[in-house]
Order: sequence, then C-alpha cells, then structure tokens
Amino acid sequence: MAETDLAETDLAQADLAERDSAHRFRVALHDTDSAGVLFFGHLFRHAHDAYEEAMRRIGWPIDRLIRDGELGLPLVHAEADFLDRLRHGDSVRVSLALQAQTRKRFVLDYRFWRGGELAATASTVHVAIDPRTGRSRPLPAELIEALGRLADGSVG
Amino acid sequence: MAETDLAETDLAQADLAERDSAHRFRVALHDTDSAGVLFFGHLFRHAHDAYEEAMRRIGWPIDRLIRDGELGLPLVHAEADFLDRLRHGDSVRVSLALQAQTRKRFVLDYRFWRGGELAATASTVHVAIDPRTGRSRPLPAELIEALGRLADGSVG
Amino acid sequence: MAETDLAETDLAQADLAERDSAHRFRVALHDTDSAGVLFFGHLFRHAHDAYEEAMRRIGWPIDRLIRDGELGLPLVHAEADFLDRLRHGDSVRVSLALQAQTRKRFVLDYRFWRGGELAATASTVHVAIDPRTGRSRPLPAELIEALGRLADGSVG
Amino acid sequence: MAETDLAETDLAQADLAERDSAHRFRVALHDTDSAGVLFFGHLFRHAHDAYEEAMRRIGWPIDRLIRDGELGLPLVHAEADFLDRLRHGDSVRVSLALQAQTRKRFVLDYRFWRGGELAATASTVHVAIDPRTGRSRPLPAELIEALGRLADGSVG
Repeated sequence: MAETDLAETDLAQADLAERDSAHRFRVALHDTDSAGVLFFGHLFRHAHDAYEEAMRRIGWPIDRLIRDGELGLPLVHAEADFLDRLRHGDSVRVSLALQAQTRKRFVLDYRFWRGGELAATASTVHVAIDPRTGRSRPLPAELIEALGRLADGSVG
Repeated sequence: MAETDLAETDLAQADLAERDSAHRFRVALHDTDSAGVLFFGHLFRHAHDAYEEAMRRIGWPIDRLIRDGELGLPLVHAEADFLDRLRHGDSVRVSLALQAQTRKRFVLDYRFWRGGELAATASTVHVAIDPRTGRSRPLPAELIEALGRLADGSVG
Repeated sequence: MAETDLAETDLAQADLAERDSAHRFRVALHDTDSAGVLFFGHLFRHAHDAYEEAMRRIGWPIDRLIRDGELGLPLVHAEADFLDRLRHGDSVRVSLALQAQTRKRFVLDYRFWRGGELAATASTVHVAIDPRTGRSRPLPAELIEALGRLADGSVG
Repeated sequence: MAETDLAETDLAQADLAERDSAHRFRVALHDTDSAGVLFFGHLFRHAHDAYEEAMRRIGWPIDRLIRDGELGLPLVHAEADFLDRLRHGDSVRVSLALQAQTRKRFVLDYRFWRGGELAATASTVHVAIDPRTGRSRPLPAELIEALGRLADGSVG
C-alpha cells in the first residue's frame, strides 16, 4: 500500500472517529417550555457542551485553560437558526466544525441533527485573550494546529 | 398649546415611560461561570425576559398566547454580540426595540447597558405560526399595531 | 411618645420595608417545561436570587464575598416542597427568613407566594468556609448580626 | 446449574447492566459559577436527567407520558446534600434507586459519584396525578412493577 493510501485510510478512520465522537443529547424536560418545544436559549448550552467536548478531544480542555489562567477564549458573537421544532425526547446529534480562523480568533459551526434531518444550526466566534488583563493576544500555534483537526468534523 | 405640541409632549412622556419600563436585572451567581463572567448562553434568557415584559406591556402576554393556542411566535433566529464582560453583581438595563416587521415576521433588537456603557447587543427573529398545524400565518393587525409601539424603545 | 413605642414603630416600618424589598419574579417561559408548569429545579434559581438580594440588602453582597476571597458560604443542603403548580405568567413573591444560625452555619427559609396562596417553600443550609483552603471557619460576628435582621422577613 | 443459580446470575448481569446504564455527565462550564464550583441548583437538572434516562430504560419515557396526557408524575419534594465541591471538568456518575413507593407516590434516591468518592446525594418525591384535573390518582400497576426494577440501581 502506498503512503498516500495509508494517509487516506488514516484520514477516513479519523473522520469516522470524529463522527462517533460527535456530541449527542436527548431533549430533556428542562430543555422544553410550555409551548412544548426546546426553549431557544438552551440550544446554546448544548452548542457549548459540543464545544467543550471537541476541545477536550483535541487536547485543549476548557477547564484546564481556565485553571491555568494564561489563555481565555471568550465568545464575542453567537447565533443560531432554528429550522424545525425540537421536542421533548428527541435524540439530537451535534456536529461541529472549524469554519474560519485567524491569528487571534476562530469561528465554529454547529449542526443539530435529528436523525437525517437538520433541525438547527449555530455558530460561535471566539477571541484569544490574556485573562489577567482582558486584552487580545495571539492564539498559541499548537492550538491553531489542534483546531485544524476540527475542520473535517462537520460531516452530517 | 397647539395640538402638535401636545402630541409631542405625550410622545416624550411615553418615551420616558418606555425607559422606565425597560427590563432590569442584576447578574446573578447562576448567570456566571468559573471564568468569572456571564455565561454567554444566559444572555438569551435575559433577552427573552425583556421580550416577555415588552409583550405584556403592549397587551400581548406570551403566556396568554400559548394558552389560547391560536398564534405562536417562535424564534427562527437569534444572535448576540458580547462587547464587554458582564460580571457577577453588575446591574444591567435591557432596552428593546422593533427593528423590522413584515406581514409574517418581526425582528427585535436588544441592548444591554451597564450604566452608560453598552455591554452586549442581541436580536431575535420571530415568525407567526398556527400552533395547531405549525404552519406560517399572518400576524394579526392588532399585534402589528401594538409592536409599532416598541419601535421607539431602543433609546439607551 | 415613650421609647418603647418608638422602637416598635421603627420595627413596624422596618418590617414594611422588608416586605417591600421581598424578591418578586414572574414565571417566565424558560421557567416552564412541556408539562406546562415551572420545572422544579428552577425554583432553586429563584430562591438563590432572593438570597442574593437579601444579602445585598443587609450589606453582604455575594459578589463582593467571592471577589474578596476570604469567606465562602457554600450550600451543603437544599430542599423544596411544591404545594401548587406555578404556571407561565404567574406573579410570585418570595419571602425569606433566617430559620436557624450557629457559629459556623445558617439556615434560610423561603416562601413562594402567588397572591395570598403559598405555592412552594424551600430552605438552604450554608456553611462558612475559607475559600483558599475549603475548610470550615466561624461566621464573622458582623455577618451574624446582619443575618439577624433577616429573622423577621418571613411574614407573608 | 440449578435454577436458583441461574436467577442469581441473571440478577448479577442485570445489576451490571444497571451500572453501565447509569447516567454520566461532565461538569460543564455552564454548570459552574464564579465561585469556581457547580452551582447547587444545577445538580437538580442532572438528577432529573438521570430520572428521565431511568424512566426511558424501564419503558416509561416522560415525554410519552406528557404527550399521552393520562398520567402526570410531578415532584412534590426535592432535596440534595452537597458533600464535596464539584468542579468544572469533573466526570460524574449518577446512580439512582427507588427508595420507597406507595399506591400514589414514589421516592427516588440519587448518588453523584466522582470516581469512588460520593460528592452529592439527592432525592425526589413524585405523586401520580391526572393531568387533566390535577387530582391525585393511583400509580398504574405496570408502572409500580417497572419502578421495582430501579430498586437495585443504587449500587455505587
């Protein structure tokens, strides 16, 4: 087997692992409201859960970042589109992908799947700061590299 | 006093009332996270509180809408920009304004003020549906008129 | 007017102020679930809001305590009884009272009133710790005195 | 192999399955507050997630109950004890067991384990009601039987 083939196989397996490690949740009673569907604001909690899982997977758990106190990645923008109503008991799979990244910020895209149907999308914009001063700083090169591994995770 | 002057005085007083009735909250412990600031997703809860208050003020309380079961106003889009970190104990004033409105949807803008400083903005897009079928329907004329009263509420 | 009378008048006025400063909230859409009533867990969020307001009122705001880092008051026990269903749009008044207090801990009682009807009760047990070590420590004498002012706040 | 042995083996395997199907979660950023630990009220959200999972496992998913509209199981009491601080990133296993059950109500006990250490306990009391009238009603015999299967789930 040629080296290229091997690399492709590895990539395919990595992609599969990526799929398997996608964040999953079931719409809980506390996620819904008296209109009978997911309260829109709770989608962002689930998006952040998917983000925390992804960061852990690539070796940059947010809890460690906060404890170390040298790099903060606060959100400066968040948005979501609600395509179909998510109901109590629905099983949801969240895929996450790096959508863009510059020296000091990155954008993540989220897709919320109920079976084969796309029920919602979201995106979050994160900037790198020094938590001690609150000032902007560059993303560490190792984090940029690690984030690159999220680029292929958006497959439904 | 001319009729125009009277109208202007009324408007000024209405505007003042609008300011007074703006939603206020203090960033609670449960709003913050271990990074020491408001968890971004909770901003949407507060935006929705401001929306519920505004709808009640103009005579269209959401709880009555849900109980009546003839008109639903689900969100199809929500977004927020985080300009400055909101901290535990901060006192926040939320002003809300109708940004746009068509036959079947409307857009609300929210501004989150800490004193004279704008700490965050948000917007939500609502569509009119028939809750029994989930299908799009026109906004009632009376609601369109009532929403118009929100148009001047965005003054900081 | 005798001194005793004066003191009683002061107490009556203080009691009135206590009543006026009781925490109030309206059951929001995000407080409810698809069963159409307040999700039980959210009652504790509202109880804590009442606690934060009370601590601010007596000069011991929790945000300052956390920032100062010398005294932590974590909960070691919390409980609630749900007497009647709270529904979306219900207006609720939370009265809070010091139920018991020792050298190192205190117990707060909460009553959730919808008009004249008691809809729920709760209580929380707090211990004094040194946040740097996590170890138990005595409550400051000034805090014990301040907490005493909450003892009469439970009037419905 | 004697029949008794077989039954015991089955029980052991069922117990193992019970252990495996215990609810697990990682303390998320939104679970914590600016004091750096789990906000106490969020423990009840996780307890309810464990309850929803257990009810689904024994064939009585809460979402179906709410949709069917014939049996409601509202909480009339909830309580929790916080033994050790749960921190951002902690991996927690929730075991759940039926603690008591009568004709019209049942009590569930929850244990929150971080590795081999018990970090918190909780319990919830549920009553059977007819959701159309809000009145008390007996638990269905099939549900009583199904709840019995939870009796052995509390093993840490």
